[in-house]
Amino acid sequence: MTTRMIILNGGSSSGKSGIVRCLQDVLPDPWLAFGCDSFVDALPARMQASGTGIEITADGGVSVGEDFRALEEFWTEGVVAMARAGARIIIDDVFLGGAASQRRWLKRLDDVEVLWVGVRCESEVAAGREVARGDRAKGMAASQADAVHEGVAYDLEVDTTRAEAMACARTIAARVRRPAER
Amino acid sequence: MTTRMIILNGGSSSGKSGIVRCLQDVLPDPWLAFGCDSFVDALPARMQASGTGIEITADGGVSVGEDFRALEEFWTEGVVAMARAGARIIIDDVFLGGAASQRRWLKRLDDVEVLWVGVRCESEVAAGREVARGDRAKGMAASQADAVHEGVAYDLEVDTTRAEAMACARTIAARVRRPAER
Amino acid sequence: MTTRMIILNGGSSSGKSGIVRCLQDVLPDPWLAFGCDSFVDALPARMQASGTGIEITADGGVSVGEDFRALEEFWTEGVVAMARAGARIIIDDVFLGGAASQRRWLKRLDDVEVLWVGVRCESEVAAGREVARGDRAKGMAASQADAVHEGVAYDLEVDTTRAEAMACARTIAARVRRPAER
Amino acid sequence: MTTRMIILNGGSSSGKSGIVRCLQDVLPDPWLAFGCDSFVDALPARMQASGTGIEITADGGVSVGEDFRALEEFWTEGVVAMARAGARIIIDDVFLGGAASQRRWLKRLDDVEVLWVGVRCESEVAAGREVARGDRAKGMAASQADAVHEGVAYDLEVDTTRAEAMACARTIAARVRRPAER
Repeated sequence: MTTRMIILNGGSSSGKSGIVRCLQDVLPDPWLAFGCDSFVDALPARMQASGTGIEITADGGVSVGEDFRALEEFWTEGVVAMARAGARIIIDDVFLGGAASQRRWLKRLDDVEVLWVGVRCESEVAAGREVARGDRAKGMAASQADAVHEGVAYDLEVDTTRAEAMACARTIAARVRRPAER
Repeated sequence: MTTRMIILNGGSSSGKSGIVRCLQDVLPDPWLAFGCDSFVDALPARMQASGTGIEITADGGVSVGEDFRALEEFWTEGVVAMARAGARIIIDDVFLGGAASQRRWLKRLDDVEVLWVGVRCESEVAAGREVARGDRAKGMAASQADAVHEGVAYDLEVDTTRAEAMACARTIAARVRRPAER
Repeated sequence: MTTRMIILNGGSSSGKSGIVRCLQDVLPDPWLAFGCDSFVDALPARMQASGTGIEITADGGVSVGEDFRALEEFWTEGVVAMARAGARIIIDDVFLGGAASQRRWLKRLDDVEVLWVGVRCESEVAAGREVARGDRAKGMAASQADAVHEGVAYDLEVDTTRAEAMACARTIAARVRRPAER
Repeated sequence: MTTRMIILNGGSSSGKSGIVRCLQDVLPDPWLAFGCDSFVDALPARMQASGTGIEITADGGVSVGEDFRALEEFWTEGVVAMARAGARIIIDDVFLGGAASQRRWLKRLDDVEVLWVGVRCESEVAAGREVARGDRAKGMAASQADAVHEGVAYDLEVDTTRAEAMACARTIAARVRRPAER
């Protein structure tokens, strides 16, 4: 079967966005990229720091509220609909709820073929990159590094601790199933 | 009937994004905002300057290719699916094809109730704002100011030439139909 | 005498940055633009939310500490040195200390000819634009609208409440003294 | 003598900005960071794509014109003046002219103590990171990787090919001379 979606899960500053851009570069077909960052950008500003939306504490903790979860469900539904309509989709997500977050996707995917990718990065290295990028609350990388992978099942895992984004992208691309040539 | 989507159409630098953020602020329910900018961000980088993707000339002209149009169809399908699932959606679009661009939405909307909004801005004023924002190719505002409205039907129109984004948002919000109170 | 610096002072969301970009566009010579935003970007991340650096409260209040003030003095010295070396400089500043902030510049300017510009915007309108731009803490515009002008002396004032950035820029540009033609 | 400036030179996508942010984090005193990116941001928009300003070709080549060079001289003068006034300054530069670019700094530094740092990254790795970051013209990293170091003398060199930004920052920080303790 043809891969319609690639879903990457990993902690903050594990290098997901870089891998996504490399994937879009190395894959011959055009793939659309969405993720938790673009979802949060779509929210009303008032939900970006509130109990019903998403809150980021000074030490990088993230908690999301009821309204956030509801909108996320609708968004998930729509993204899967794009794939079903014919788009190739790469998702860059942070499974704050671990296995439960994966189930949120699974219950909507139905017949859509997904390549599940875990993006690992050693906590200390991710924490250093968090400082280097300079646009994330300090502590977020460390607090998410392992937690987001708990109970999640993958088709393959990559580790950016010692591998470049481009190398990880090539590893992932090799596993993408394209329509049979005739 | 309850309004599920608000679709704003207007030329570059006509002030759509500002109105969207004000709408998200004044509307009591949480609305998700998407648009042509977030769609283009989702494309592979190589499509952002090519004959098959989107090309912006030195004088601000915009042309889009076949692959762009195909992906846009899938994206449109998915965004409407979000609304159908229960989300309230604001779209900020530039109808490069005028009436034909509106038909792209219409053929997928079916039973989803939309509030169609034209965002006008006098060409010369939009051109000045284009310079003031500093992140758009000079000439884009002027070339799109009138063309994007040709043959498009609206529920209401706002004009940012002399009205603030917040005032336009309030005018639009007053026309949004909410579920009947009981 | 030839104008070497243009210093704009106004509250948050009063439209200074837009005027600066329009000034750079309409002035025939090349002018370099710096300001409080680019200064803050140059600070260590840890000073962007601390008692010794700059702190922005949830309601948009801004307070700066001792280290911030010391670095700002050095930065001011260097910017004036650029003008003295031959550069034309536009500064976009927020005089949190009103007249005292202007004195910070005055004591270093010496023989450098400056055009002082006050950028006004009615508090309510600035507050609406703050929502429309979406990247500033709500309340900052209102709290700064009048306070930053207290006791400050200008060569001219512009008001963006009803005038476009480009129109304000043309008014300012008309007052810039260029080297005498021979 | 006390180090007043740290000047980093390296090609595009060699990892300079990340090292700068890590340096600002690990150095106990507050250091201000400037560089060629913040300088280009200060230029009029019309100079960012013209023969007199800076031009970036489709394959990532960079050429700068006469006006650019003149303004850069004034800017250099001002940045050194900040250090002389008392600021600690980190510069992140791309020596397009190799040794000549270093001389531009040297002739103004006089008595200001500088730590010169070369930032290396293997061309192929930098090219991959260029794709991963997604905001630079493809080819710029490869074309600058070696050229910018020609004839330049350093106090130390770091190589980001296999070392993290944070590790490089620690190596550099260990070489910064602080005022003698009493």
